Amino acid sequence: MRVSGLAERTGVPVATIKYYLRERLLHPGTPRSRTQADYDESHVDRIRLVRALTDVGGLDLAAARRVLETIEDPELERLGVLGAAQRSLLGPEYVDVDDEEDDASPAPDSRARRWAAARGWRVHPRDPVLDRLDRAWEACDTAGIGLDAARLDAYADAAERVAEIDVDSVPSEPHDALRQVVLGTVLVDPVLAALRRLAQQHVAVGRAQG
Amino acid sequence: MRVSGLAERTGVPVATIKYYLRERLLHPGTPRSRTQADYDESHVDRIRLVRALTDVGGLDLAAARRVLETIEDPELERLGVLGAAQRSLLGPEYVDVDDEEDDASPAPDSRARRWAAARGWRVHPRDPVLDRLDRAWEACDTAGIGLDAARLDAYADAAERVAEIDVDSVPSEPHDALRQVVLGTVLVDPVLAALRRLAQQHVAVGRAQG
Repeated sequence: MRVSGLAERTGVPVATIKYYLRERLLHPGTPRSRTQADYDESHVDRIRLVRALTDVGGLDLAAARRVLETIEDPELERLGVLGAAQRSLLGPEYVDVDDEEDDASPAPDSRARRWAAARGWRVHPRDPVLDRLDRAWEACDTAGIGLDAARLDAYADAAERVAEIDVDSVPSEPHDALRQVVLGTVLVDPVLAALRRLAQQHVAVGRAQG
Repeated sequence: MRVSGLAERTGVPVATIKYYLRERLLHPGTPRSRTQADYDESHVDRIRLVRALTDVGGLDLAAARRVLETIEDPELERLGVLGAAQRSLLGPEYVDVDDEEDDASPAPDSRARRWAAARGWRVHPRDPVLDRLDRAWEACDTAGIGLDAARLDAYADAAERVAEIDVDSVPSEPHDALRQVVLGTVLVDPVLAALRRLAQQHVAVGRAQG
């Protein structure tokens, strides 16, 4: 199909599709003439995936491209699947936690790290997700939300339950696994956020009715 | 203090603070001369809250203003706290679920609504969060993430646990309650997202070691 057909199938404007092509978020079609190309179902799927990552997952186009490049990385085997997934999601400023030079410097310390250690979670002390947790925790302090270690532990119990479902649903083949972990991390977060709001209502109604 | 002092205390540039003042995200200082004003701790707190909502909570400035206006709304008592919270977070396109005219039209139907009804969740069938869940669920389908009703139910179990913690931590005074619910909804999501990623690592390490 032509680019106009692609726009019709996906509901994405031609100008946006051309932008995706220029930015290499979308693979080129088969050339038909000097100015035209043919597109197929693989292009439809890819455009829908880009829209899912940006509209629902809330990624900007640079992050979406990093995610898509990661799930297509033929070098994947040498990285752990989770490491590669988190690398792609954390962005270019990501510090390689396995880097030996870094390991020579003293391990960082923070409230999130002390909390995770006290809980017995096996996570790398240099993991930048711990820094994200520190920032998010501090933002709660700023807003006067009483998020003490006990409440964080209660949330962590629920997070472990979610993580068990996540990990159980990962297929064994490494490329499928990476795709599942990366896309699942981005796209299941909005599902969980919606479920949390609906569950709040359900629980609140239950409490109000005794 | 002057606006420069405010910038120093908060780490937010003077130009940004002036923008917040123009956009009424920040209340005016006490006039000191025709071109100068005095600011106090309430301004420091407010700027930090705006930054928490935008940097950590990921809200744009329009959404942050809606959230801040909601938690300061003196009309609050006539709205339910959760209704007001979700109203502020869903944006201006929000459909009032309690509107009688809407109730005359047939109740909408969707996969998320059928799933929530089957689960026995007491949520309003017109709740726009159900539409968000439909969109998020569809994005997972698009990406090939096998999110069937069983897996969604398992996530919902975890969401109920989170919601119980959320609801238990809401104070009884309505304005404090609204503040806690609105800010907690925005600012605890990033905490939960970080916990999910850390728990994934912890669970994956546990599985790998048998």
